[in-house]
Amino acid sequence: MLASAQGINSPLKIVREVYDNLPFNRLLGLKVEFLEIDRAGFCFSMKNELIGNTVHGILHGGVISTVLDTTGGITATASAIERMKDLSNDEVAKLISRIGTIDMRVDYLRPGRGIQFHSTGTVMRTGRKVAVTRMELKNEENVLIAVGTGTYIVG
Amino acid sequence: MLASAQGINSPLKIVREVYDNLPFNRLLGLKVEFLEIDRAGFCFSMKNELIGNTVHGILHGGVISTVLDTTGGITATASAIERMKDLSNDEVAKLISRIGTIDMRVDYLRPGRGIQFHSTGTVMRTGRKVAVTRMELKNEENVLIAVGTGTYIVG
Amino acid sequence: MLASAQGINSPLKIVREVYDNLPFNRLLGLKVEFLEIDRAGFCFSMKNELIGNTVHGILHGGVISTVLDTTGGITATASAIERMKDLSNDEVAKLISRIGTIDMRVDYLRPGRGIQFHSTGTVMRTGRKVAVTRMELKNEENVLIAVGTGTYIVG
Amino acid sequence: MLASAQGINSPLKIVREVYDNLPFNRLLGLKVEFLEIDRAGFCFSMKNELIGNTVHGILHGGVISTVLDTTGGITATASAIERMKDLSNDEVAKLISRIGTIDMRVDYLRPGRGIQFHSTGTVMRTGRKVAVTRMELKNEENVLIAVGTGTYIVG
Repeated sequence: MLASAQGINSPLKIVREVYDNLPFNRLLGLKVEFLEIDRAGFCFSMKNELIGNTVHGILHGGVISTVLDTTGGITATASAIERMKDLSNDEVAKLISRIGTIDMRVDYLRPGRGIQFHSTGTVMRTGRKVAVTRMELKNEENVLIAVGTGTYIVG
Repeated sequence: MLASAQGINSPLKIVREVYDNLPFNRLLGLKVEFLEIDRAGFCFSMKNELIGNTVHGILHGGVISTVLDTTGGITATASAIERMKDLSNDEVAKLISRIGTIDMRVDYLRPGRGIQFHSTGTVMRTGRKVAVTRMELKNEENVLIAVGTGTYIVG
Repeated sequence: MLASAQGINSPLKIVREVYDNLPFNRLLGLKVEFLEIDRAGFCFSMKNELIGNTVHGILHGGVISTVLDTTGGITATASAIERMKDLSNDEVAKLISRIGTIDMRVDYLRPGRGIQFHSTGTVMRTGRKVAVTRMELKNEENVLIAVGTGTYIVG
Repeated sequence: MLASAQGINSPLKIVREVYDNLPFNRLLGLKVEFLEIDRAGFCFSMKNELIGNTVHGILHGGVISTVLDTTGGITATASAIERMKDLSNDEVAKLISRIGTIDMRVDYLRPGRGIQFHSTGTVMRTGRKVAVTRMELKNEENVLIAVGTGTYIVG
């Protein structure tokens, strides 16, 4: 029986499982919503523990920076895997564990108000050493809450 | 009976209570360690839920960006309160609820390894509208893990 | 004889003249290419004095950060003028002189190679105090050389 | 006759000459003021061409971002050379030409007012691929005008 190209052991499938199971992502309720070779997204739901301003009932800035950072990270990872091709599962796992954020900027454009949130990451630059990604976060009404730019070690 | 200058209702005391009780700060275990008119710090302990790289057992980048953002926020808040003087408790609470991060940069310098972490924020610029703060995060061995710069609306 | 809405004394016309005549913009050869209420662009030509890497003959990073900063600045200015409406020429001049960059991030994506360069700025957030703009720089072949995000005092 | 350790062909001497002679640095009047293995600085004088706000007679934000970028670049270069040791002059020249800014943040803290300006760069992180530096710009009265953080490819 053949595994499909996107089958249980495909590199992107491994990446997805790793990110879905990072303890801090689970604490926040972040789930990978989609994952392609040059873009990716997470979704999560509002809950009381994510609030950072009790008067206005909006997301803590740290929730927003967390989801943007992890969205940029998974996007950079997918692009690095695509560049390398034909990695074994062990090599994919090793690559994932080596990738790290060098720096990130977050712009908080509007209050983090909503019920369901969706992030998107796209690759702006990718190379042997470094990837740069652009990220954004919207709520269920497609209101743009925050954008970010991240630089990641991928080599 | 008189309240002392730093008594139960002093502005900085109110700020401290608000930050200690933000739901997301509580979820992470962040506690205000010190709070002065131009600098402030949080501390927190490593725990499994804060991990972002299960291979290396290090803090999630989002934990680091969260603590830096909230450290910059409380520092900007204290400097804004100092500028305004003689605020009533209600005015302090209103001011706190209006302060928000405009943008932030985080530089991840070393892996987030450690048992106990301490952040520090200092004011670089403060005015009627905007404050800029510099933040850093160290572990219990004084290893510098990350630095950041944040711009906050304070008016 | 009546001046047209976009006539010689229209606010955007004044903004354009101020930016075209800033001494440092003139030194680099930056000219406003277009200016609307929520977007703007500059153009300039490669010349020897703008080189920052003599081996590769590419733009100095400082030329790139300068054009991105000034592009964000003019975009923020136009959006501030639009918000205020019906300003006299003096008020426009005063507003322009008060606008300043708070902070900026630049991402250098590809080498600054080319003959003619074009920047574009768009407004991401605008308010009474602060505007946030996104900028990009391309060469004559539409290659994306750099992007940036700037935060500006506009109040 | 022996050349001294810091003699005419020492690596840092070559770096200094390259930076002093970059066309855009010459256009602005930037000169290397000091250069060590982990810190460096430039100086330059106010002149009309560097003005960005004719009402206030202050430095263009692009002048400030240029000097911060080039200060971070030379600091990253020196730290990379120190890591590699015993490079021939050709290898030093090749290394210099490969180093480039990945991204930079600039915080404009106070108006760029003054007669003589001095920048300083220090290394915050250095490795085989990437260096992160912190930069600042002061005037002749030691007033802090701007700070920045830059990430550089050094490998």
